[in-house]
Amino acid sequence: MRYELYYWPEIQGRGEFVRIALEETRADYVDVARLSGRGKGVRTMMRLLEDPEIGHPPFAPPILKAGKLVIAQTANILLYLGPRLGLVPKAEASRLWAHQLQLTIADVVAETHDVHHPIAGSLYYHQQKRESRRRAGYFTAERMPQWLGYFEHTLAGNRKGSGYIVGRALSYVDLSIFQLIAGLRYAFPKTMQRLEPKYPGLVLLHDKVAARPNLSAYLSSERRIPFNENDIFRHYPELDA
Amino acid sequence: MRYELYYWPEIQGRGEFVRIALEETRADYVDVARLSGRGKGVRTMMRLLEDPEIGHPPFAPPILKAGKLVIAQTANILLYLGPRLGLVPKAEASRLWAHQLQLTIADVVAETHDVHHPIAGSLYYHQQKRESRRRAGYFTAERMPQWLGYFEHTLAGNRKGSGYIVGRALSYVDLSIFQLIAGLRYAFPKTMQRLEPKYPGLVLLHDKVAARPNLSAYLSSERRIPFNENDIFRHYPELDA
Repeated sequence: MRYELYYWPEIQGRGEFVRIALEETRADYVDVARLSGRGKGVRTMMRLLEDPEIGHPPFAPPILKAGKLVIAQTANILLYLGPRLGLVPKAEASRLWAHQLQLTIADVVAETHDVHHPIAGSLYYHQQKRESRRRAGYFTAERMPQWLGYFEHTLAGNRKGSGYIVGRALSYVDLSIFQLIAGLRYAFPKTMQRLEPKYPGLVLLHDKVAARPNLSAYLSSERRIPFNENDIFRHYPELDA
Repeated sequence: MRYELYYWPEIQGRGEFVRIALEETRADYVDVARLSGRGKGVRTMMRLLEDPEIGHPPFAPPILKAGKLVIAQTANILLYLGPRLGLVPKAEASRLWAHQLQLTIADVVAETHDVHHPIAGSLYYHQQKRESRRRAGYFTAERMPQWLGYFEHTLAGNRKGSGYIVGRALSYVDLSIFQLIAGLRYAFPKTMQRLEPKYPGLVLLHDKVAARPNLSAYLSSERRIPFNENDIFRHYPELDA
């Protein structure tokens, strides 16, 4: 099966959580909006978003096409891909658990985005900078420790003792935690430097994932878009207490 | 199977999306934190949240216990319950589609909550009122039409032409849309009065769901907690342009 991923070509964004799952497993996929030519590019993605004939219209990217299926919502795409890419255990209980963690990661991602956009997505950061600074203070002091503490505790509590967060082997949730840690380090380097000693399991997991041959090759390739200030994880020093 | 639902006893909140699915199908369930006595009440819920022995710790309520399974994240609970309560079609494509819509509803719910909490969940509304007013202006002018427009368009585009949003029959997504419309009406009555004529399909769906015998009986019972200002949907007139 050749998968088609549709996502904004100039940011990692939510699409990255899908991309790293495809990259780690060397899945056959086309990153449609990043290519040019017939049936490629952002215009093709926009047409997919606006297609009146599409039975299941997505609200926003990322979108995965898998044969006739058109699937949106990052965690939903990973719910679908997980078993097909061998990135989640077989039992229903494990799949629900992995998905639950992925939805919790999605909550962190949305909350992190809103640190630089607390008022409206349609405004620029500089138009809501004052409110952002105020929100960032609570985010770095309260929420980051809460979220990181939850994932650290959950990782340590995995009865399989594998160092992975779900069951015995690598899952798409581990890949997403890698991406979350990488993003938070980029956006809030000072805060992370201060916090990380409290979450050694997460740091170890991040490093273990980053060192996997397929992922490591991907991260040093041109396919990995650099973090930047149009993305979810943005480095604004004034927001990093 | 007797299900156990764990959620804050004094608000509808996210738990309500689960509760109305259980109520509509007259499922056998116990609303644990709303009862008193041994093994009941909020303290039992807090113990479940803090239980070091629990293999799959939830970050927050709602939580559903189904036999040995402990499931959190509203949309994940409905993903599990949907087929068991007959509230979603059997085909995988339909289940993914229903879940995708439910995740989009979850996004609206989170965004609606943050209208009155744009800075921090740990502050009171009155401590972030100025920022709330600013956010509410964009929410009512831009986001509500965007979200409602998306669901109206999706409902109208259902090829089964059933008046329901997924396939031929009522699904948990229809129940959630009912709850979303009811909540937005409570929180933003003026805005909704102005917007509703543009979304006749959603209004009809809301009314059709509300009139179903089981749901209607539930809504007029004491089991339905009234909307209030500790909840996600809050009526602050100054936020309703």
